[in-house]
Amino acid sequence: MPGDEHAPQARRFVSTTRLEAFSDGVFAIAITLLVLDLAIPRSGSPLERVLDAWPFYLAYVVSFLTIGAAWLAHTSITDRLTKVDLTLLRLNLLLLLVVAVLPFPTRLVADGLDDVSGERVFVTMYGVALLGIRVLLYALDAYARWEQLYAPGSLDEPDTVRRTVLPVVLVYGLAILIGLVVPAVAVGLYCAIAVFLVVPFGELRRLLFRRA
Amino acid sequence: MPGDEHAPQARRFVSTTRLEAFSDGVFAIAITLLVLDLAIPRSGSPLERVLDAWPFYLAYVVSFLTIGAAWLAHTSITDRLTKVDLTLLRLNLLLLLVVAVLPFPTRLVADGLDDVSGERVFVTMYGVALLGIRVLLYALDAYARWEQLYAPGSLDEPDTVRRTVLPVVLVYGLAILIGLVVPAVAVGLYCAIAVFLVVPFGELRRLLFRRA
Amino acid sequence: MPGDEHAPQARRFVSTTRLEAFSDGVFAIAITLLVLDLAIPRSGSPLERVLDAWPFYLAYVVSFLTIGAAWLAHTSITDRLTKVDLTLLRLNLLLLLVVAVLPFPTRLVADGLDDVSGERVFVTMYGVALLGIRVLLYALDAYARWEQLYAPGSLDEPDTVRRTVLPVVLVYGLAILIGLVVPAVAVGLYCAIAVFLVVPFGELRRLLFRRA
Amino acid sequence: MPGDEHAPQARRFVSTTRLEAFSDGVFAIAITLLVLDLAIPRSGSPLERVLDAWPFYLAYVVSFLTIGAAWLAHTSITDRLTKVDLTLLRLNLLLLLVVAVLPFPTRLVADGLDDVSGERVFVTMYGVALLGIRVLLYALDAYARWEQLYAPGSLDEPDTVRRTVLPVVLVYGLAILIGLVVPAVAVGLYCAIAVFLVVPFGELRRLLFRRA
Repeated sequence: MPGDEHAPQARRFVSTTRLEAFSDGVFAIAITLLVLDLAIPRSGSPLERVLDAWPFYLAYVVSFLTIGAAWLAHTSITDRLTKVDLTLLRLNLLLLLVVAVLPFPTRLVADGLDDVSGERVFVTMYGVALLGIRVLLYALDAYARWEQLYAPGSLDEPDTVRRTVLPVVLVYGLAILIGLVVPAVAVGLYCAIAVFLVVPFGELRRLLFRRA
Repeated sequence: MPGDEHAPQARRFVSTTRLEAFSDGVFAIAITLLVLDLAIPRSGSPLERVLDAWPFYLAYVVSFLTIGAAWLAHTSITDRLTKVDLTLLRLNLLLLLVVAVLPFPTRLVADGLDDVSGERVFVTMYGVALLGIRVLLYALDAYARWEQLYAPGSLDEPDTVRRTVLPVVLVYGLAILIGLVVPAVAVGLYCAIAVFLVVPFGELRRLLFRRA
Repeated sequence: MPGDEHAPQARRFVSTTRLEAFSDGVFAIAITLLVLDLAIPRSGSPLERVLDAWPFYLAYVVSFLTIGAAWLAHTSITDRLTKVDLTLLRLNLLLLLVVAVLPFPTRLVADGLDDVSGERVFVTMYGVALLGIRVLLYALDAYARWEQLYAPGSLDEPDTVRRTVLPVVLVYGLAILIGLVVPAVAVGLYCAIAVFLVVPFGELRRLLFRRA
Repeated sequence: MPGDEHAPQARRFVSTTRLEAFSDGVFAIAITLLVLDLAIPRSGSPLERVLDAWPFYLAYVVSFLTIGAAWLAHTSITDRLTKVDLTLLRLNLLLLLVVAVLPFPTRLVADGLDDVSGERVFVTMYGVALLGIRVLLYALDAYARWEQLYAPGSLDEPDTVRRTVLPVVLVYGLAILIGLVVPAVAVGLYCAIAVFLVVPFGELRRLLFRRA
């Protein structure tokens, strides 16, 4: 657009294809790298060694489901986008930073889940990362609405990100506070939120009602 | 669709593109991460060190072929999908969880393949994971049929997932039971199933008949 | 084109799809692998251990933002390409080599950020890699212009890679020189460049002006 | 096709999209995972430690360029495919197995490049893997021709895989034999082949002739 070149702020839009491809890549890698931190203790009988590693399995499942839920929410955002501006690309990059870093606090939480004094710091870091993912997803959705990047008709669709943000953020906040006193309870709450975000309760109800 | 907003359960469908991209990512990463656990012992002559690592090569090949076969079955499912609902996305996430976790029992099996007492627990975990992948692939296919997410004409095509599920699940179950007594035999059976699922016997027969 | 087969140099063009898919893959994996080098010291109280690891967090953020900025610049190049020739594919491969190797100097910088004598060599390697990424992005853009691989109208769009290359290369060069004397200052400058490349200052100004 | 169901061998074709996506994923991950094995010795001055790690840099570059060249050859095959049958998918899986395993012999070669007696076995393994990649690429191309999976007009295009297979396989074979006596020379030859496959000599000549 040669006529635009003297405009103070020529605004550039890009297609959603590469945003999706790059994000899918980071989500897929972060969710798969979690397996590298699964390890069992060196001593004991084989069965004891496998069972003693339960904090690693728990942390693995919570992080896997949380990243999975974030990916589901991310698809529900990008499916409705018609265009992407440079600010949305950068907000998305910030979201991916927190998603990509998640294997680190996951490892710390798993390592310290036997040691109650150690847990506190690690579980708090973990909770803040989980909360950060949800807040950034909401920011992505809010920015896309504000800048009218969504397809016009798509705003009437049921919207998981907006509908769940308030209860989820409140429970994460509560869990972080509880974790400062009883870390194990916080991990249980993070697990409950992940299950709540991933299990399709609405769909299950639909299936049950249809059959009833 | 504004008219739907008072419906009790507005059902959302998404495109298959991102399901495929994210799944391809997780399959590709899980299959490639297996290489990180290939290691040779520290002591001995170079040739001895390379040859002593045979359990790692065997476990690598079995896991590589099993994930490869799961990917082949997954493409045969998604190639026929016309739409994806939220439950299918979540079932798929569960499948990816088991695929992504596979490098962990692979490492345990390889580590313990010399130690008969240790093997039992690890080989059983491994077998349950391999069986889980196949069962979840079948569940994905069954759900897609039940909810009529497949393209109408596609149901007449030869269907690997359905046709092989019964013998494969039976042999996996048998191998898991055998593994409780003679773990090495179970690993051999897992290898045989993986080869059976990947080698295109039907195609080979076609090629031979055409030339004969 | 059978008539071309006696031509001395039959030139082959390929579609941009796989260039983008492969590059997105390498960018996404390199940016996500950075997390594997995040580690905390083994001794001390949990809080001390987490805080003592600050050089790892700093190096993580700088590398994450630099790869993120490189990906943004890469999309702004490939979005305008109409075709890709074999030389561009190879130039791109060279860029990906430097992007993929970045986790290595990142780890060295983080490891040596407490030890002033050790830093010098590592910080210089790191700076050269960061500079290399930017120079290769510029080479990619320059080659695409020279060989007229861009869509005709696209040259009038605001172009981040060209507009920022001179100041960015100058500051990188300066930072590398400073790093030979005071390594910590160089790391600070690398951080500042990464923030400058990622934060959408133009967009922020647009948003502020619109609201003002 | 209901009429086909009694045919002895109903043949299934799939689209090339997921073949490309999955292969791009594995190529991108294998090429990026190489960085995890870059390491410097623990003792010595920082500069000595960085310089002493030269075998790791050499092995990194050879493996990176070889996987890069394999990806280039792979795109030149898939760009011309109009359809994919199940045997091609499996041949491709075999190629990906060797590509994905390459970081393992790369690490062994780098580890043993100072120790002449150790080198021999590792360099031979490495050479066989490099040769295997090229042979499987050729098999993929030959199968696609034989089964007429290529677009009709595409066979007249200049074809890197076919044109280079004979000299490349001969030089790899020679290098493997030389490596049994003088391993370091073999690594040099592997490096030369990788550079030969990646540097666009034809394009460079075109550029020079055009300017002359």
